Amino acid sequence: MTRYGPMFGPDITFLGVPPCTLEEPVTYADADVVIVGAPFDGGTSHRPGTRFGPSAIRQACYLPHDGSRPSLALRVDGLQDLTVYDAGDVEMFSGDIERSLASLETAVHAVAAAGAIPIVLGGDHSIALPDATGVARHHGLGRVSLVHFDAHADTGDIEFGSLHGHGQPMRRLIESGAVRGDRFLQIGLRGYWPGPETLSWMAEQRMRSYEMTEVVARGLDECLAEAFEIATDECEGVFLSVDVDVVDPGMAPGTGTPEPGGFTSRQLLDAVRRVCYELPVVGVDVVEVAPPYDHADITAYLGNRVVLEALSAIARRRRDAAGGDPWNPHQPLLDAR
Amino acid sequence: MTRYGPMFGPDITFLGVPPCTLEEPVTYADADVVIVGAPFDGGTSHRPGTRFGPSAIRQACYLPHDGSRPSLALRVDGLQDLTVYDAGDVEMFSGDIERSLASLETAVHAVAAAGAIPIVLGGDHSIALPDATGVARHHGLGRVSLVHFDAHADTGDIEFGSLHGHGQPMRRLIESGAVRGDRFLQIGLRGYWPGPETLSWMAEQRMRSYEMTEVVARGLDECLAEAFEIATDECEGVFLSVDVDVVDPGMAPGTGTPEPGGFTSRQLLDAVRRVCYELPVVGVDVVEVAPPYDHADITAYLGNRVVLEALSAIARRRRDAAGGDPWNPHQPLLDAR
Amino acid sequence: MTRYGPMFGPDITFLGVPPCTLEEPVTYADADVVIVGAPFDGGTSHRPGTRFGPSAIRQACYLPHDGSRPSLALRVDGLQDLTVYDAGDVEMFSGDIERSLASLETAVHAVAAAGAIPIVLGGDHSIALPDATGVARHHGLGRVSLVHFDAHADTGDIEFGSLHGHGQPMRRLIESGAVRGDRFLQIGLRGYWPGPETLSWMAEQRMRSYEMTEVVARGLDECLAEAFEIATDECEGVFLSVDVDVVDPGMAPGTGTPEPGGFTSRQLLDAVRRVCYELPVVGVDVVEVAPPYDHADITAYLGNRVVLEALSAIARRRRDAAGGDPWNPHQPLLDAR
Amino acid sequence: MTRYGPMFGPDITFLGVPPCTLEEPVTYADADVVIVGAPFDGGTSHRPGTRFGPSAIRQACYLPHDGSRPSLALRVDGLQDLTVYDAGDVEMFSGDIERSLASLETAVHAVAAAGAIPIVLGGDHSIALPDATGVARHHGLGRVSLVHFDAHADTGDIEFGSLHGHGQPMRRLIESGAVRGDRFLQIGLRGYWPGPETLSWMAEQRMRSYEMTEVVARGLDECLAEAFEIATDECEGVFLSVDVDVVDPGMAPGTGTPEPGGFTSRQLLDAVRRVCYELPVVGVDVVEVAPPYDHADITAYLGNRVVLEALSAIARRRRDAAGGDPWNPHQPLLDAR
Amino acid sequence: MTRYGPMFGPDITFLGVPPCTLEEPVTYADADVVIVGAPFDGGTSHRPGTRFGPSAIRQACYLPHDGSRPSLALRVDGLQDLTVYDAGDVEMFSGDIERSLASLETAVHAVAAAGAIPIVLGGDHSIALPDATGVARHHGLGRVSLVHFDAHADTGDIEFGSLHGHGQPMRRLIESGAVRGDRFLQIGLRGYWPGPETLSWMAEQRMRSYEMTEVVARGLDECLAEAFEIATDECEGVFLSVDVDVVDPGMAPGTGTPEPGGFTSRQLLDAVRRVCYELPVVGVDVVEVAPPYDHADITAYLGNRVVLEALSAIARRRRDAAGGDPWNPHQPLLDAR
Amino acid sequence: MTRYGPMFGPDITFLGVPPCTLEEPVTYADADVVIVGAPFDGGTSHRPGTRFGPSAIRQACYLPHDGSRPSLALRVDGLQDLTVYDAGDVEMFSGDIERSLASLETAVHAVAAAGAIPIVLGGDHSIALPDATGVARHHGLGRVSLVHFDAHADTGDIEFGSLHGHGQPMRRLIESGAVRGDRFLQIGLRGYWPGPETLSWMAEQRMRSYEMTEVVARGLDECLAEAFEIATDECEGVFLSVDVDVVDPGMAPGTGTPEPGGFTSRQLLDAVRRVCYELPVVGVDVVEVAPPYDHADITAYLGNRVVLEALSAIARRRRDAAGGDPWNPHQPLLDAR
Repeated sequence: MTRYGPMFGPDITFLGVPPCTLEEPVTYADADVVIVGAPFDGGTSHRPGTRFGPSAIRQACYLPHDGSRPSLALRVDGLQDLTVYDAGDVEMFSGDIERSLASLETAVHAVAAAGAIPIVLGGDHSIALPDATGVARHHGLGRVSLVHFDAHADTGDIEFGSLHGHGQPMRRLIESGAVRGDRFLQIGLRGYWPGPETLSWMAEQRMRSYEMTEVVARGLDECLAEAFEIATDECEGVFLSVDVDVVDPGMAPGTGTPEPGGFTSRQLLDAVRRVCYELPVVGVDVVEVAPPYDHADITAYLGNRVVLEALSAIARRRRDAAGGDPWNPHQPLLDAR
Repeated sequence: MTRYGPMFGPDITFLGVPPCTLEEPVTYADADVVIVGAPFDGGTSHRPGTRFGPSAIRQACYLPHDGSRPSLALRVDGLQDLTVYDAGDVEMFSGDIERSLASLETAVHAVAAAGAIPIVLGGDHSIALPDATGVARHHGLGRVSLVHFDAHADTGDIEFGSLHGHGQPMRRLIESGAVRGDRFLQIGLRGYWPGPETLSWMAEQRMRSYEMTEVVARGLDECLAEAFEIATDECEGVFLSVDVDVVDPGMAPGTGTPEPGGFTSRQLLDAVRRVCYELPVVGVDVVEVAPPYDHADITAYLGNRVVLEALSAIARRRRDAAGGDPWNPHQPLLDAR
Repeated sequence: MTRYGPMFGPDITFLGVPPCTLEEPVTYADADVVIVGAPFDGGTSHRPGTRFGPSAIRQACYLPHDGSRPSLALRVDGLQDLTVYDAGDVEMFSGDIERSLASLETAVHAVAAAGAIPIVLGGDHSIALPDATGVARHHGLGRVSLVHFDAHADTGDIEFGSLHGHGQPMRRLIESGAVRGDRFLQIGLRGYWPGPETLSWMAEQRMRSYEMTEVVARGLDECLAEAFEIATDECEGVFLSVDVDVVDPGMAPGTGTPEPGGFTSRQLLDAVRRVCYELPVVGVDVVEVAPPYDHADITAYLGNRVVLEALSAIARRRRDAAGGDPWNPHQPLLDAR
Repeated sequence: MTRYGPMFGPDITFLGVPPCTLEEPVTYADADVVIVGAPFDGGTSHRPGTRFGPSAIRQACYLPHDGSRPSLALRVDGLQDLTVYDAGDVEMFSGDIERSLASLETAVHAVAAAGAIPIVLGGDHSIALPDATGVARHHGLGRVSLVHFDAHADTGDIEFGSLHGHGQPMRRLIESGAVRGDRFLQIGLRGYWPGPETLSWMAEQRMRSYEMTEVVARGLDECLAEAFEIATDECEGVFLSVDVDVVDPGMAPGTGTPEPGGFTSRQLLDAVRRVCYELPVVGVDVVEVAPPYDHADITAYLGNRVVLEALSAIARRRRDAAGGDPWNPHQPLLDAR
Repeated sequence: MTRYGPMFGPDITFLGVPPCTLEEPVTYADADVVIVGAPFDGGTSHRPGTRFGPSAIRQACYLPHDGSRPSLALRVDGLQDLTVYDAGDVEMFSGDIERSLASLETAVHAVAAAGAIPIVLGGDHSIALPDATGVARHHGLGRVSLVHFDAHADTGDIEFGSLHGHGQPMRRLIESGAVRGDRFLQIGLRGYWPGPETLSWMAEQRMRSYEMTEVVARGLDECLAEAFEIATDECEGVFLSVDVDVVDPGMAPGTGTPEPGGFTSRQLLDAVRRVCYELPVVGVDVVEVAPPYDHADITAYLGNRVVLEALSAIARRRRDAAGGDPWNPHQPLLDAR
Repeated sequence: MTRYGPMFGPDITFLGVPPCTLEEPVTYADADVVIVGAPFDGGTSHRPGTRFGPSAIRQACYLPHDGSRPSLALRVDGLQDLTVYDAGDVEMFSGDIERSLASLETAVHAVAAAGAIPIVLGGDHSIALPDATGVARHHGLGRVSLVHFDAHADTGDIEFGSLHGHGQPMRRLIESGAVRGDRFLQIGLRGYWPGPETLSWMAEQRMRSYEMTEVVARGLDECLAEAFEIATDECEGVFLSVDVDVVDPGMAPGTGTPEPGGFTSRQLLDAVRRVCYELPVVGVDVVEVAPPYDHADITAYLGNRVVLEALSAIARRRRDAAGGDPWNPHQPLLDAR
């Protein structure tokens, strides 16, 4: 059986890592990480275009596409120190959300079942449902916490007559038991959605949501530290879901539902590094990069760097666990090894 | 029951014509024309964004939104000489193509059943299936011919596992009997799709498709004249489907599947005028305007003017039928009335 | 008499709040807030386009235009907890600044006289003169202080042979006595304008202007606290004037005279919230959003959120004044009500 | 007295021709042509930005700015074979249309009075009033006909409460007697403005307006030939007014009131060449280039080439009048001299 | 030895055709056509960016990248009926034009020597020198004529102190004897370059250059017919060089030296088809597609379609030579096979 | 001998300062500062366009181009209190990097030899080699330290077969002895380049490179203070090299190799001010502004303000050295003089 490859455009892999074929587990049996594209924007409530997110994130880099990216900050090579494959895209017809999400769940579960960490490139945030479910089916329903960077809570109920869409996956995950409500850590929320009824439902689920005024008042580092403690309480793994709209639209314009007042790009990269270095991450998705609204590829570049930051931190965590010196952000670049 | 209004953005109507409510036929009982928005891009095979087409087409004009547009060319006011309402948008969740198309068919049929001409603002070309079906259900299956300006034949069979999508509506229309294959007039085709198998199927249906090299070799006017004869043979009405990508991407960049080598904007407007002035048009759709890829609104302006050209020509046809002098394109502007 | 509505484009209101008609005070007699559009860019010294600011600010939102926006940060609904109308635009011909400003002053005064807070959507900053004058005529000349977020002091004298323009309103306000010079609080100034002569004039008026190096050195919160004390000394009301160019051009490119080195969007939203929550605001304008230079609507979104942040904070201030718990930015989102 | 220079941006001249100073006639006493910038968009009814037109038109070229441009088509150098100066911009504050137009009329008249042809770079079309008036004051009121390429008739009466604006100059010119109504030749009109009342007024003035359907039906060359005969009947000179929106928005997107269905760029260049080669042109303006809406400078390039085409044809006309062989478009490039 | 692949971005081939390795002739021994990327813009005199041309042209298509493109117009599949490989890019450092052009010449010659037609994707027009030289070295110096669609003659001598650059290749080709001056057919020239001295040199070489006024006056078809006769006189092969700026900037904005008044996209495609169907083409280049200045990929799409049009016509020419019916542009699409 | 002027576009100077001619030292004998344009992008490894950087940086300002810019922050006029000339551009053919860099070195050395500070406007970062070398040749090899704001270390060895390019100048400077390795202060590095081998080489040279995680962990002010101590140890002068990509791509999109996670614009301006106020700066370059990828000129504006910030701080340093009060960032704007 041949690789399906990408749904749109030429057959490329994330910065040139080797390809694998989802239907043939032998092709990724030794993987630490498998990248999966989810080129789906049928669940978008406003500006579409995230179907081109996987392709854009895979190639937004000015360096050779040679499957190697040594991190200056962490002094590891996330693409070389880990065994990383790119499975191409799952076929996801934007006009049929139910079938598409089911296909993606199958794919993500296959990766998790192979012992690898799936990194899913969205696509709109609808995909968090199959992403986290696919991982939780392997690690145990309710055994994986969810760290969620986003401007929006994504806990809506029915919208446009559908249970599925990019504003609803978190509710579906809690309802199904895939993720415990009190192990949901949401950081960066802001704006004017959802309303009181949904917020009450969230409070009942004992979710922990950090709105931006709290993040500003207390500092992001303190909020993260608090969240990390919750995340690892009675959970063996952490799923990291990064909606690029957590960053301010000024720095990440290429997205569908921009909400002013967000993180800087720097803050997001620092936060992703901390999650993946300090926590036992078992799955990641990076969503809502919408190339049609991007300028000079800056949002695609940011998505690409979020993936690399996660990979680098996972690699460094493993290196340190194997006996290396712990990472020290105060150490000068050229003193490090 | 209140008007649903537009699916995206503020509640506006086409250039300020009065609103009506689809669920309340009394609100458009006296209509000559009802405009219906179909903000759907779930059937798009490549660049999405046509969900914003209805809103963009409705407002792309530098003149006051006062429900009046006197045509210089035809010396009628398509918005005043006809009774035109705007029903707002049909709710069409892009993630569920089957439900969405069914909702649209119901809406279009309601308009036709009220004795009015529906003008549907797309959205992607998937909507031609419910558009033409809704009209044909009223006028009689196989009794309405289809004049189709497009770069693409849109006669694909199954794509991405679905019977529906913006490359397939014409096949579905013929299969269902809504439109006779030999009353399909396609003008402007070009490029590298579909392949021989589909072309054979089309030939079997006795479709008449004018590829651009034929249009250039013979002249657009001659091709249209020939097509018009076929269109009115054993058909009482004509459905006009205008895919804006029939125009060259240089003049209509805001679209999803651009194919170089098309009409000029001028040619499209002239052709639409001829169709609506010379033929008994019973329905229209204008599709594939994708604002995210547009520049300075030029494609949205073109879509708006296609609608106005159709309305003006329909109004002039009625005026002439009521005893006026036939329209003469050679007549100087200031000699006309 | 019918509503004039918007000067450009279709007749919409701010996020769907009910319309009112300026010439008919009964239509806004019960208003807490009346939104007024000032689509004028005739006073712009460089890049024009703010005439489209009111329309862009009114609709830059991905949520339904339903006249409701519950604030996550403040747990009030600024559009529902207050009675808010949108009066449409004042007719302001950009080619005649004197007539245009006079018309706007009449409109703003009418709103203030009705006991409501006018929120004026610019337009270029020329409009601050009629905005603050219209309010001061009702509350008393010299009885309203002015909190002014801007990269520029806007205290020029005669430019291009005119007393009016977007670099001069603050001087005119002081000269006329509408606002006391020593109750002018300017925050965010930077760059290379005005020169020493104008700065001397400003110092003579005892204005208090926080240049960005002072803001960085002392911290924005400390500067605001100091400014707030001055603002309420012998003044019963505060007019808030927000020039979107106080934000860094990287985050707010859609403006006419961009000056690098400004606030982040987050800082502006936090500052606007503090002004409207801590001070007795009697009028607001949001100016210099220039859509032709915007990208992906990010500056328009920011303008929209500045308005919502102001409305939410005004609503929360009233709720707290009526006996509610004071707002606490450290409180977790889901603990709040 | 020093040269005022450009109103916006650095002090440049049209492709590097020598500067002159309007207030000092000696600086252009020997001029064949004087270029004057009119950076004014206060009369624009919709999208502004033409204030940057003069600067954009002056520099939109990939060749060295060396004051030389040998025309391949006409084998003359319009910048060298004629004596051409650039007077910089007239100060025109967009917020004061009456004062601005008066200043421009003074400038244009000064150029005409010096025996030179003024070429005015707009700016919006409001400036046609002072442009043609300034020329007619020198050559005689009613003695100069007007050849006018435009999508719009620009014969409105009062708009936004003003007698002046970019939709009204042609009416004012006829009312004042500067130009005879029956010596107005308008070519390229289309769309939905003005309405019947204004058209009746135009017919009464015996204007000759070629709407695009007539241009298509009869051919542009035939229409031009007919118009040229009228233009030189009882008139010694011709003023050429080129509104870049006569070209299709697809090829000239950088403009304020785009109307689909226009000329190709090629058609405009060919038509301008014919006017300036076949007729006794005494003044030119090129208006409505709005850089904020342009892409990759294509509309600015077109404006620049319209100016060069006019200059080249004027030079060639003079060369032929001095005894050269008449220009022959059928002659191969390398056979010509 | 491994394939060098593309110089920028991921390793893709033209619409998915199989790759080959230039250094290993066995990998393309059976080729009819080999595509070679020339990602070089160091010779550009104005707007750079053509280094991204090869990548953009390779992938600008909305259809699957499956190595198949059945032409509607010609009823052949240029990618399947011919054996086509993509050799990736030649390494061409833009900072070193001499070394880069030499490397490309070696590559092109290798393809020609293998009996295949090289289709070179530029890159700026500097590459025409090595492209045509590489082909001529195989087929015989002076034995290959050159059909050259361009706005510019590209016959400059020394510019910026260099013999090489995108305005000079045609002079170098004639000087070296690679191509006879009197077998140079240039079509589409216009504008203001070069000056008389260079034109005299061209005339001395007996080049045949069709300026746009001649093309308009005589008609493109007649000019082509005349040129084709010259091209095949005493020459066994034809090299086709397509500079995308021959098309009007309105339809092909993504280029470095735009010259208004060019071909429509349709005209270029029709002309390319005629060249490749009627003449014995032995090499092709498509140059000056500059993605940074493109909008919505329309110029890249055009470049892609020029390549496909050439391939399709070459395939059809071979099919007809093998006994098929000659192509008839008047034949209806569905009558053809 | 006449001034060469700018290589692209009209002859302008930085914000209207007087011109000088590099070949005629008398024209800048009294200069404090000479601005030199280096319009070269032949060394760019990815997105080109910096050849237009000098022109864009010179004119990106909304104020009159009058050769005066009084700084609000520093209360000096960098263009008036210093004697500043603009020498125009050095002719640098992007296709010949070796010759181009040599020409630039000659020009920079000429400025330094005249006792002035050269401020070089890039251009890609290749130019740092001739810039710093030209200065060091005058002040003494190894006697000038280098403060380098950049996302990239630019210490690559051979790339694309060349010793020169925008990723390599810092290695060449150290190898030649122009700058001591242990007097290289790099601030803002991040991302995934260079790899371990190059980092080892850098460590061997005893460079001091502040990666962004160190900058965030320790604070930029502390890092700068530490770096400043090193910079002035055994060095009489400091060369400041500002690569605009040190700023986050969200705030500076117009650049060739964007790396997310950088400075804010505010941070860069504050840092440049500190360098030029606290250190004995003898040369400056501002590089990598690439207008084709910019939006609304925001990156060009930033480049312009970096130059002005440097000039203002140099002027203030001299004023204070002459006995003025030291600058105090806590002082209110209107208390300062």
